[in-house]
Formats: sequence, C-alpha cells, structure tokens
Amino acid sequence: MESGRLEAFSDGVFAVAITLLALELAVPHPGLHHHSLTDQLSEHWPSFAAYLISFLTIGIIWVNHHTLFHNVAHVDRPLLFINLLLLFFVVSIPFVTTTFADYLRDGGFQASVAGAIYNGVFAGMGVSFGVLFWWTIRHEHLKTALPPGAILAAVIRFGIGNVAYLAAVGIAFVSPAAALLISGLVAVYYMFEQTPGRKGGQGPREGTGNGADKARQFGAGRDTGAAGDAGPDQDF
Amino acid sequence: MESGRLEAFSDGVFAVAITLLALELAVPHPGLHHHSLTDQLSEHWPSFAAYLISFLTIGIIWVNHHTLFHNVAHVDRPLLFINLLLLFFVVSIPFVTTTFADYLRDGGFQASVAGAIYNGVFAGMGVSFGVLFWWTIRHEHLKTALPPGAILAAVIRFGIGNVAYLAAVGIAFVSPAAALLISGLVAVYYMFEQTPGRKGGQGPREGTGNGADKARQFGAGRDTGAAGDAGPDQDF
Amino acid sequence: MESGRLEAFSDGVFAVAITLLALELAVPHPGLHHHSLTDQLSEHWPSFAAYLISFLTIGIIWVNHHTLFHNVAHVDRPLLFINLLLLFFVVSIPFVTTTFADYLRDGGFQASVAGAIYNGVFAGMGVSFGVLFWWTIRHEHLKTALPPGAILAAVIRFGIGNVAYLAAVGIAFVSPAAALLISGLVAVYYMFEQTPGRKGGQGPREGTGNGADKARQFGAGRDTGAAGDAGPDQDF
Amino acid sequence: MESGRLEAFSDGVFAVAITLLALELAVPHPGLHHHSLTDQLSEHWPSFAAYLISFLTIGIIWVNHHTLFHNVAHVDRPLLFINLLLLFFVVSIPFVTTTFADYLRDGGFQASVAGAIYNGVFAGMGVSFGVLFWWTIRHEHLKTALPPGAILAAVIRFGIGNVAYLAAVGIAFVSPAAALLISGLVAVYYMFEQTPGRKGGQGPREGTGNGADKARQFGAGRDTGAAGDAGPDQDF
Repeated sequence: MESGRLEAFSDGVFAVAITLLALELAVPHPGLHHHSLTDQLSEHWPSFAAYLISFLTIGIIWVNHHTLFHNVAHVDRPLLFINLLLLFFVVSIPFVTTTFADYLRDGGFQASVAGAIYNGVFAGMGVSFGVLFWWTIRHEHLKTALPPGAILAAVIRFGIGNVAYLAAVGIAFVSPAAALLISGLVAVYYMFEQTPGRKGGQGPREGTGNGADKARQFGAGRDTGAAGDAGPDQDF
Repeated sequence: MESGRLEAFSDGVFAVAITLLALELAVPHPGLHHHSLTDQLSEHWPSFAAYLISFLTIGIIWVNHHTLFHNVAHVDRPLLFINLLLLFFVVSIPFVTTTFADYLRDGGFQASVAGAIYNGVFAGMGVSFGVLFWWTIRHEHLKTALPPGAILAAVIRFGIGNVAYLAAVGIAFVSPAAALLISGLVAVYYMFEQTPGRKGGQGPREGTGNGADKARQFGAGRDTGAAGDAGPDQDF
Repeated sequence: MESGRLEAFSDGVFAVAITLLALELAVPHPGLHHHSLTDQLSEHWPSFAAYLISFLTIGIIWVNHHTLFHNVAHVDRPLLFINLLLLFFVVSIPFVTTTFADYLRDGGFQASVAGAIYNGVFAGMGVSFGVLFWWTIRHEHLKTALPPGAILAAVIRFGIGNVAYLAAVGIAFVSPAAALLISGLVAVYYMFEQTPGRKGGQGPREGTGNGADKARQFGAGRDTGAAGDAGPDQDF
Repeated sequence: MESGRLEAFSDGVFAVAITLLALELAVPHPGLHHHSLTDQLSEHWPSFAAYLISFLTIGIIWVNHHTLFHNVAHVDRPLLFINLLLLFFVVSIPFVTTTFADYLRDGGFQASVAGAIYNGVFAGMGVSFGVLFWWTIRHEHLKTALPPGAILAAVIRFGIGNVAYLAAVGIAFVSPAAALLISGLVAVYYMFEQTPGRKGGQGPREGTGNGADKARQFGAGRDTGAAGDAGPDQDF
C-alpha cells in the first residue's frame, strides 16, 4: 500500500492541532473581567511563549513526517498504528500547552507538574517518531535505502531531542520556566540542524552533491513522482 | 467514480473528530476553582480513560475505512450516504465521550444513561461500517473480489464488536465503568485481531503468501497505483 | 487549472464545519446545573433535531459539490470566489444551528428571528451553489457538456430547495418549529430525489443506460481517471 | 520534492482557520444574559464585520497560495519553514478577529491596541507571502519563469497591501473602526485587482493571449498535469 492516505489523514490531524493551539489563546471578553487588554496580554505572556514553541514543534514534526514518508514506498498495518501513536501525542499538545501556560503564571508545584506533562508529551512524540523511523528501516519500506552514516546521524539527532525533553521533565520540578525554555531550544535546534550551509544562500539548490550533507539527511531520496526531477533533488 | 474525494472528506472528518477529543480534556483554569492541578488530573481519570478509548476507536475505524476503500473501484450515490451515516456517528464521539466522562465521576443512573449513549454511538458506527462493507460486496464495487471465507471472517469480526457494544449498552445500567471497560477491550481486540503473526517480527513483510492470513483480510488487494508494487503487497 | 486543490480545501471546510456541529451539542457539566442528564437531553431536543438536519444538509451539499466538480475540467479565478461564497454559508451553519436550537426552546419572536437566519443561511448556500453550477455551464468548464434536459432538471431541482428555504424564512415568524421542519424536509427531498429506482436494489449499477435518469443527473460524465472505467459509470 | 503535501497541509490549516472564525461568533445562550437575540445581533455588529473581512482575507490568501504553488516545481526545506511562518499568521487570525471585535464595541485605547494587533497579523501574513514569493523566484523553483514585468507588478501589488496594513496599525490608534475599514478595503482590492476584464464576461476563457493581463498574473503558467490542457490555461 502506498502512503498517500496515511499522509492525508496525518496532515489533517497536524493542521487541526496546530490551528487549535491559537484557539486556546482566547482572551476573556471585556466586561467579564476588570482587566484591560494590555494588562491581559502582558499577564498572558506564558500563553504566547508556549503557543509559539508548540506551533514550531508541531510544524517541525510535520516537516519531518513529510520528509520521512516522502521516502516510504510501502505502508503496513503496524506502521498505521505507530503513526496513530505519534498522532496521539500531537493531538494532546493543544491541551498540555494551555494547561502549562495557565499554571506557569501561578508558579509553584502545580506549574512543575504542568511543565513535566508538557515535556513528557513532547518526549512521547519524539520517541514515537523514532519508532516510526526504525520501523520503516527495519522492514525495508523505503524507496531508497539509507546509508549507515545517515541512519547513525538520524539516531544521534533523535537522541539529542529526546534526552533534552526527558531532562526537561525533571528540570520542570526545579524551574518550570527553564523547562519551557528547553523545549523552545529543541525546536530551534531541529529547525536549523538539518540545513547547514543553506542560510548563507550560496545560490539555488546549494548543498546538493555534498556527501556529508546528504549523509545527514535521512528521508532523502530521489523523487519517483511523475515530475521526474530525479537529479538534484536530494537537497530536501 | 473513484473513491479519492470520499476518502479525503472522510479523512478530514476523522482528523477533526480525533483532535477535538483532546480539546474536551481542558482542565479548568486555576483561580476559577479551588482545586490544584494534581487533584483535578486524578479526579478527571474517567476523562483520560474515555479519551484514550475513543482515540483508539476512531483510529481503528479510520484504519478499517482506509483498508476497505483501498479495494473499492467504484463509488455510487448510496455509498456516499452510507459513508455519511458512518461519519455521523464518528462526529458524535467527542460529544458522547465528554458526556460519559463527566457523568461517570458522579455515578448513579445518569452515568448509566451516559454510558448507554456512549456505547450506542459505537454500535451505530459499527453497524454503519458493516452496511458500508456489505454494499461494496453486494454491488460489486471492489477491485478484487473477496473469497467467501474472507467475507465470512469479516462478518464474524464485525459481529463480535457490535454484539459487545450492544451488550455494553445494557451493562451500563448495571455498571457504567464496566461499559467503559468493554469498549476499551473491543478497541484492543480490533487493534490486534487483524494482524496475527505480525508481532513476532519474523522479518520484513512477514505473513504474505499465507492463505489463512490472506483470507482474514477483507479489503486486501493488489495496489493498482503507479508504483506498480503489485507483488507482495497483499499483507496490508 | 484543475480542480484538485479547490476540492481539497472545500473538503477541509466541509469536514470541519460538519464536525463542529456536534461540538455545539455539549451538555453542561454536572454540578454547574441542577438538571440531570436525562432532563437535559429531553430539554435539548431542538439541539438534536437541528444538529441532525444541519449534518444532513452539509452532507448533501458536499455530495452535490463532489458531483459537480467531478465534471469540471477547468477552474478560473471567479469560480474560486464563487466557491468561497458557498463556503462562507457552509461555515456559518454551526453558528446558526446552535443559535436556532437555543432560542427555539424559549419560543417567541426571538426564536422566529433565529429560524429566519437559519433558513436564510441555507437559502444563501443554495443560491451560491446555483451560481457555481451556472458559471461552470456558461463558461464551458465542463469535461462533458450537459444536455439541455439535464440543465432544466437541475434548475428545477435547485429552485424547489431555494423556494422552500425562502418560504421557511417567512414561516419562521409564524412557527419557528415549522421552519425547522421545512429545512428537514428539503434535506430528505435532496437525499432521495436524485436516485430514483436505486432503493429497490435491482442489482449492481442499476439505472445506467437509462436516459431519463441520466438527464436528471447534472454533473454526470465519464470518469477520465486512470481507472479507465469509462463505460457504465454515468450512474453517479 | 513536489509541493503536493505542503499544499494539503496548508489547505487543512486554511480550512480549519476559516471555519473557526465562525465558531467565535457564538451568541451567549438565552438565560445567561438578559439581552434578546436581536439586541445581541445588533450589538455584535463588529463581530460580523470582522468575521466577514477575516473570512475574505483568508479566502484571498488561500487563492493566492493556490496560484503561487500551481507554478512551483520544487520545494526545499527553507520553503517549508517560510510557509509555516505564513501559516502562523493565518492561524492567529481567528484569535485576533475575536479580540478586535470584542474590544471595538467598547472603544478607547484598548480597541486601538486590538486593532493594531489585528492589522499587524495581516501585515505579517502579507510579508510572509512576499518572502514565499521571493524565495520561489530567487531559487528557481518555478515551472515557468516569470517575465520581469510580472515580477514587478506582483511586487507593487504586495507593496500596496502591506503598506495599507502597516498604515492601519498606526491608524488604529486614531480610529479603530477606520483600521477595520482599511483591512476590508484591502480585501476587496485583492479580490478584484487580479481579474481585470473578467467581470464583463466577454465569453469563456476571456483574457487569454492578452499580454498585459498575462504580465499581471504572477503564478501563471501552463498546467503540466495529466490533463494536458496546456493551451489556453494561462488565464488563471
């Protein structure tokens, strides 16, 4: 089976989850509270910080999901369920984001619990994605087999994120704000890590034909689609 | 007509319904209540249990929908309406999940009514899926006709789930928590039932060419897509 | 331009709107009110009736949208905006459904206003769909041109629904419940009108090659997809 | 990589955001307030005005996104992140729309802040779209290269909208209602600007082969899809 519909369903879930994040920002209507809008916006800074970080994290996991399935030729039933496990954590993000933001304002032990849950869900998402990656390699579902170097690089990269999330679960009990900061740093790390040499802007399609770069890109692979642009397309 | 757009619309509905489930988890903001987060999380256990079961149930019905339409060559107008009936029950799941979770905490007759409605919606979803399956067979809409053994196996499998859901409607009046447990067990049953011999991990693409396994898989069929991987793809 | 992405976006909007309908059913949590669940469910009957009718109406407009664009070869910029107008009314349905259901319980002039808005949105949706249909014919966007009889039949069919909705806007000021009933009857009419002779079940793919049936089906046309089942597929 | 899945995910986000707009219209249930429905509807006029403008703005950005990616042959990782930035602003629209509508009723400095945020999000969306457009040109991602005239015309058109939005951020501190009006006028401008000579209806596919018209249409390009209708299709 091809991965088209798995991707469509997953895209729907990613899209709804990322849009619902902003729904939770809702500022109380005037008249219900005695606070002004400016007071409320400055009071709600943890909501906006957590919203930004969660938006970026869902965005990155979508980009990675996209990259991974671009190279998946074959989908079996266990893969559907591993994907559901990943989506389970994605779907929980709006809930844990609001909860963390609400309790972070008050501080104390409750904020620590909320921060531990928040980073716990991110860790669960990271581990699920790792299992998804492992399943596609192990069961030879890929269109283009990955060189061992690419697999190792991917494992190291997954490891860094997951270790950071798990550390943040513990750190939340020392400082909930530090736990939020860590999840933000992981998002920034994943955003830039995979694209060395791109920011300099050496011209169009820079970095292709670069072996080290290529090795770092799991999920790379020639596009087997109708467009037939098989040549310089590994730079994704 | 091909089934592409029916699947896209259904995927959208499944994706929104499964994501809205978690929206309902929302813990009251601190300050509105005098309960701490930890108290609220432990008080809300029925919400989390019901959320998990409903998530898994929608996930499974999506997997089955996916499997069924993978083998559907031809969609007619009645099929669109039978599919709408299925989606009607899917769309109701977030509502009945929250209602059941809220009333389960209080117990009593009201919890029984909520539990009966919860399992009634699952039964309605199961029966609609059975009608959908029956319509595709009866009207020769399939790409690959199913052997009689596969049809019988599918009917038995549908029967077990639907009988369990209908039994849970009655059991809800004895014990609402037992009714919740039954819907959870049905989800676990459907999760594993269709993939015997897969969990052992006998290597990639295990189980293909296994007649008994194949017979159990309604919806199997060669992929007629552009990828052309027609050979060992029946193992979905 | 092909209609693929217009359909994908529209499907997303239809899917979210139809799922949000059920979100509005939310019964107040126990403890906030002194009413039992059974009391609330019986008090909320207008919510459930309006939910059912709105679900069926969105479902039918999706089926018709699907049927129409199945035969559209060419999408231009005005068509995108006419489609946006249609979606504007679709997106308003969850809001007007809840409002009507809430005020119908109380009755009086306010319920009449809510009922007039409810049917006004349905009328707007119907008229938008008519404009969409007219644009595709007038600008020769269709894959298969429609015979004049099919166009006439479609115009009559659109007319009946729109006249009924507009009548219901007025009738809402006499009896809001009657206005709800009319929108329900229109939904049932559209559900069955297009499929004469189907319910008898004269075997698979019944009704094909039937000129009268075919003339009644605007949007019919041979499937130009890869499946190549061009022959007996006009019966959609 | 092809743009199919980027479009699918973006369509999902656009669809959810545009549908959530209407969710925010929710009128308080009768009994909670002492206001009648008619009073509430007339009091809520800023909600309906802001809803209309935001709906149209999201609709237009979707049409433009659609037009742009119709001509994109190649998607790289930075493009995915620029697209995420655009979606970030799109996703914020329901929140800023409700906030602006709520505070506009009360007027004063708080309404000005809300109006500045509202137009600031629109400006952010416009700038992101401009970056997206610039990236696709600069990195030669297009199927059909644009003539310099088309690029200049597009830059001017983007400029007008973004300057208007930024001006409205300032104007909000003089008159929040004027800021709302400006964003409405920008929407109407974008709706008509790109389709000169279309409204006259000079027959099917008017305007094709018109050099001036063609130069004005960035994103134009021959359809490379399977339909092969390469000829008169530049009029999109």
